Parts: sequence; structure tokens; C-alpha cells
Amino acid sequence: MSTYQVTASATTPTQVEVAARQFRFLIDEPADLGGEDAAPNPVEYSLAALLGCFNVVVHLVARERGVTVTKCSLAAEGDLDPAKVLGQQTDARAGFQQIRLQVALETDADAATNQQIIDEAKGRCPVGDNLANATPLEITLA
Amino acid sequence: MSTYQVTASATTPTQVEVAARQFRFLIDEPADLGGEDAAPNPVEYSLAALLGCFNVVVHLVARERGVTVTKCSLAAEGDLDPAKVLGQQTDARAGFQQIRLQVALETDADAATNQQIIDEAKGRCPVGDNLANATPLEITLA
Repeated sequence: MSTYQVTASATTPTQVEVAARQFRFLIDEPADLGGEDAAPNPVEYSLAALLGCFNVVVHLVARERGVTVTKCSLAAEGDLDPAKVLGQQTDARAGFQQIRLQVALETDADAATNQQIIDEAKGRCPVGDNLANATPLEITLA
Repeated sequence: MSTYQVTASATTPTQVEVAARQFRFLIDEPADLGGEDAAPNPVEYSLAALLGCFNVVVHLVARERGVTVTKCSLAAEGDLDPAKVLGQQTDARAGFQQIRLQVALETDADAATNQQIIDEAKGRCPVGDNLANATPLEITLA
């Protein structure tokens, strides 16, 4: 089992500086959500994590099948009703109601093989699994 | 309803360059996962998104209650069995089996109020909702 750890400190009410191993980066909100728009916002990073993860797994599955990937471009989008995060009475959930991931893949294999690679990658992508399925989330006040 | 969109292109089998509105950043894997370790990896970005999101919602809930937050530091960790992503026979899921988020919060309110803020923020955090609960994830080959 591998344990991954990330820490963050608020630099404004909407902005954190994140530390992940030797890396440091900002997360912020755009002006219409009260931030200074200094960096992508949290839900954009969540979609980006999905793209980054899916790319790794697509290449891994392709290599296992002896397929060479010459191009892999990905786009993700998600629909979010901000009512709950803003504290309004709503039946809508807080997060994305649906996430759509489109993959443009160029390989030396045929279209059916490319589809099989995508299908297998879906079940083996860690970030995709954590979005598609429930995960115990424990939040404690230090 | 707000729709968020992010795109990415593979620059190596483990690395993507991400575009989110005007922002560009890299995601990579460390050397032991086959990458060049040029940037945080996908699951680290997923945890970071949770921290960034929770920070925003904590400040929002505190402000609604007339509470001033003077410090908010967050740490998240998750346990992941790499067997499935590596294609081994396993009953383990691909993603984090559990995620733990610790919040260190300094405010002008008492400890019980701080705990209430955390409890309410948990239900209103979009990224936390998408991790804790299942979300339809549609993956298509372009």
C-alpha cells in the first residue's frame, strides 16, 4: 500500500499554497467566486487530476498490448450547481453531477483496439475510480 | 448550472500539460512510477484539490456565522494499492481506499463552533462530495 500526502495553508480565504513533496503551487478562485484568480480553482484541479491519471493508464495499457501511442489529448468537463456550496436550500449535490472525459488517441492499432484500451483504462485509473465510486472521507479538526 | 472544462495533452507517457482557462501546468509521475518527476502526480493533485476546496468552504461557512478565521492549514492523505493500476489480479480498487483530511483552524470562536464549521463545510465542499460519493463518469473516444 502506498500513502500519498499533501499539505496546504490558506494565504487568502479562497487561496492556498500547496506542498506535495518538493513541489509548491497555488489554488485560487476566479473573481466571481471571491478570489484573486491567481491559479486554477479546486474543481479544475480535480478534473486535471483525472486527465493526468487517465493519460498514464492509457499509455500503460497500450504498452501491455504492444500498441504505440503517438498522440493522446484529453478533455474533461463537469456540471456543478453552486447552490449547495453557497448555502442555499437545494436538493442538488455540492459537487459535479456528471463528469465527461473525451480522449483523442492516435496509435498504430485499429479503432477497436483503441476502444478496448480506453475501456480497460477506465477500470484501472485511480483518480477515475475515486470520482466514479464512493470513498470513505474522514475529516477531523486538529 | 456551471460547467467547468479542462484539457490536456500528453508530452510523455506519464506527463501532460494541462490548460484550465488561462492557466498551464504539468502533471507527471515520480521516477519509480516511470516518469521524470517534473511535477506533482495525479493523485497528489486530487488531494490538493480537496484541500483547496475545503479551505474555500471553511472560510465561507465561518463568514456566514460571523467568525473570523485567522489561520487554516490542511493536510490530506490517502492509501492506494497500486496492484490494479499495474494490471495485477486483485480485489483491491484502483483508487484511494480511504482519504483523511486534517484541518488546523484558528478563529475568534470557541472549539465547538470550529467543529460545527468543519462539519457543515464537509457537506458543502464540491471536491469532497465528488470523492466521498459516486459520480457518473462518462469516458468516450473522440
